[in-house]
Amino acid sequence: MSVTSVPGFVAAGTTCGLKPSGAPDLALVATADGAPVTAAGVFTSNKMTAAPVLACRAHLAATGGRAAAVVLNSGNANAATGVQGLSDAGAMAAATAAELGCAPDEVLVCSTGWIGYPLPMDLLLAGIPEAVAALAADGGAAAAEAIMTTDTVAKTTVVSGEGFTVGGIAKGAAMLEPNMATMLAVLTTDAEVDPATATDLLRAAVGTSFNCLTVDGAESTNDTVLLLASGTAGLVDADALGAALADACASLAVQMADDAEGSTKTVFLAVTGAASDAEAAKGARDTANCQLVKCSWYGEDPYWGRIAAEMGAAGIAFDPDTITISYGGQVVYAGGEAQPVDEAALRAHMAGRTLDLDVDLGQGGGTARIVTTDLSHAYVDENMRTS
Amino acid sequence: MSVTSVPGFVAAGTTCGLKPSGAPDLALVATADGAPVTAAGVFTSNKMTAAPVLACRAHLAATGGRAAAVVLNSGNANAATGVQGLSDAGAMAAATAAELGCAPDEVLVCSTGWIGYPLPMDLLLAGIPEAVAALAADGGAAAAEAIMTTDTVAKTTVVSGEGFTVGGIAKGAAMLEPNMATMLAVLTTDAEVDPATATDLLRAAVGTSFNCLTVDGAESTNDTVLLLASGTAGLVDADALGAALADACASLAVQMADDAEGSTKTVFLAVTGAASDAEAAKGARDTANCQLVKCSWYGEDPYWGRIAAEMGAAGIAFDPDTITISYGGQVVYAGGEAQPVDEAALRAHMAGRTLDLDVDLGQGGGTARIVTTDLSHAYVDENMRTS
Repeated sequence: MSVTSVPGFVAAGTTCGLKPSGAPDLALVATADGAPVTAAGVFTSNKMTAAPVLACRAHLAATGGRAAAVVLNSGNANAATGVQGLSDAGAMAAATAAELGCAPDEVLVCSTGWIGYPLPMDLLLAGIPEAVAALAADGGAAAAEAIMTTDTVAKTTVVSGEGFTVGGIAKGAAMLEPNMATMLAVLTTDAEVDPATATDLLRAAVGTSFNCLTVDGAESTNDTVLLLASGTAGLVDADALGAALADACASLAVQMADDAEGSTKTVFLAVTGAASDAEAAKGARDTANCQLVKCSWYGEDPYWGRIAAEMGAAGIAFDPDTITISYGGQVVYAGGEAQPVDEAALRAHMAGRTLDLDVDLGQGGGTARIVTTDLSHAYVDENMRTS
Repeated sequence: MSVTSVPGFVAAGTTCGLKPSGAPDLALVATADGAPVTAAGVFTSNKMTAAPVLACRAHLAATGGRAAAVVLNSGNANAATGVQGLSDAGAMAAATAAELGCAPDEVLVCSTGWIGYPLPMDLLLAGIPEAVAALAADGGAAAAEAIMTTDTVAKTTVVSGEGFTVGGIAKGAAMLEPNMATMLAVLTTDAEVDPATATDLLRAAVGTSFNCLTVDGAESTNDTVLLLASGTAGLVDADALGAALADACASLAVQMADDAEGSTKTVFLAVTGAASDAEAAKGARDTANCQLVKCSWYGEDPYWGRIAAEMGAAGIAFDPDTITISYGGQVVYAGGEAQPVDEAALRAHMAGRTLDLDVDLGQGGGTARIVTTDLSHAYVDENMRTS
């Protein structure tokens, strides 16, 4: 149920020794025949851009949006590694291409892990032929496992369209606003689509999924979402393909929130009644990234005062008397005052793994939805030291 | 060594029963003769504005910048309390004025504590006469103690100018970007200054102190800085008065960082080489408020990769090859690569209570300085539940 659920794609996950734990750390997703197909990518906007992101952009530009494979390693981000990093990313692609019999530019490259350490190229160059040899029509799950870093479970998805399929694997946190563990996703489909349309559809799908997920507001150096489209299923309706890509990305995004570093709650925050969609998104994002609010979720405390204060500080149209705040469908604050609640029902909702928080600003018709997480002791533990 | 270090001012800190702990919760700062003097205030920009902030603004507008006293309570913020909250803030001022023999508009009001609970006015109205009766020329320390919430130590300062004195008390976190525990400060001086100049000087002092301090990026509903200037020392040079106010505010701001909720490190972050001062401030603030960076400080880890990534994501002019990052004066990253360091010296610096982090962006002449804190287990503990 992953990238290899789509006919014509193979994948592998192997171990080349990048991680002290000895866990799998090298993944490949490729066309079964090694021939290039339509490819598209969406990347981090961080200017501290990692070498593999620069390599992907260059390869997609050189080929006009064609690729035969994606090679991914975990355990080392190949970020802030200077000229050597660019050379190493190129060498990873070239080694993979030599085994597959395609051009180096037709291989895309992803890395995830700690920033600032040169890639151990001896390990990678020895491991890539083994990974290519391990490519299999049921290798998607192994590939998903090999890209994990602080993830505790592998993330995969498959969406069936009318006459086509979209499959995917992912790791990490959240595009554009991930935590330290970079977000990577590789999607495959047998639908036929040109590179320009594929890029547009992928960007739209990312916009409603990974870009509506925030763990801690930090943006990674390596975030990458790639799509390979073989076309063997023939031309499909672009809207249908776009919807399937959006569903696949949304599924992966929620899996990321559920498994975010130290997360004990996945929070679905909906803002309505804003002066505009942009203002709704600003209020939602500021609230979702507020340490104080995140701690209150961890404590299972429906503390609406801080929610109202974040909205009031977001620089958006706001009136304390028109804001309505609800947890689990129960209004806790409205008309400028705390509201009577069913304490037992509210407590039960706050104790769940998933929280629903609705904020109506009473200012207009703008709306936004965001998925986020709490801030726990375990989050601090996972991020207080690099080793 | 506080507000009552300035001749002509009296203060008191008493207990009226607002806190379950039974700790002092009611403070007064007043002129010794109960007569109004020049007054100025700087307030939160949060649109979820607490009632006492609205009352202070209204009173200063009504009097043209005159006040005889400030009444402050801790344990309840009188925020999100609707029309009743405004009435209660007015009643606190009126009760104080009746005891002092001044007009109600000549009393300023501050509250700090949990949001969303009506003030227990029976306790306050019984406590205010007792507090007035306790006013004393050595009461500043007691007043500083009575405004504490999650503070573990009282915060006071005194600065001697040429022929005048500035005294102050404060509690809480950080103006404009405090944590849940609102930031309040009351300053006194015997310098003579008109209300408009006093406001300008106070705003400038806040800009270089409390506004350069961030704990978690959240902005309180109640943040207030007030100045009472008796004029008994006669006219003084405005620059000298401004410098003394800035020194007093800076001292209180560093005391706040040292005592921020759960803080184990006070971090002095200097950004240089930005394209502009505004870009330097944006990069500094984003980095200071990044949960990942804060966790790395708590872990005493000189992880420069995340610092670079925050600067790269801040939407400012940035080049990975021109950024230089130093901890404790030791360059850890420059020219696009990690630099060799004296490991023992670096470890010793990271283990200290105070960290010095310097980031030069290599883009221009813009600079900014910010004081911030780490993110610890204790921070999560303090903020996960309201009770």
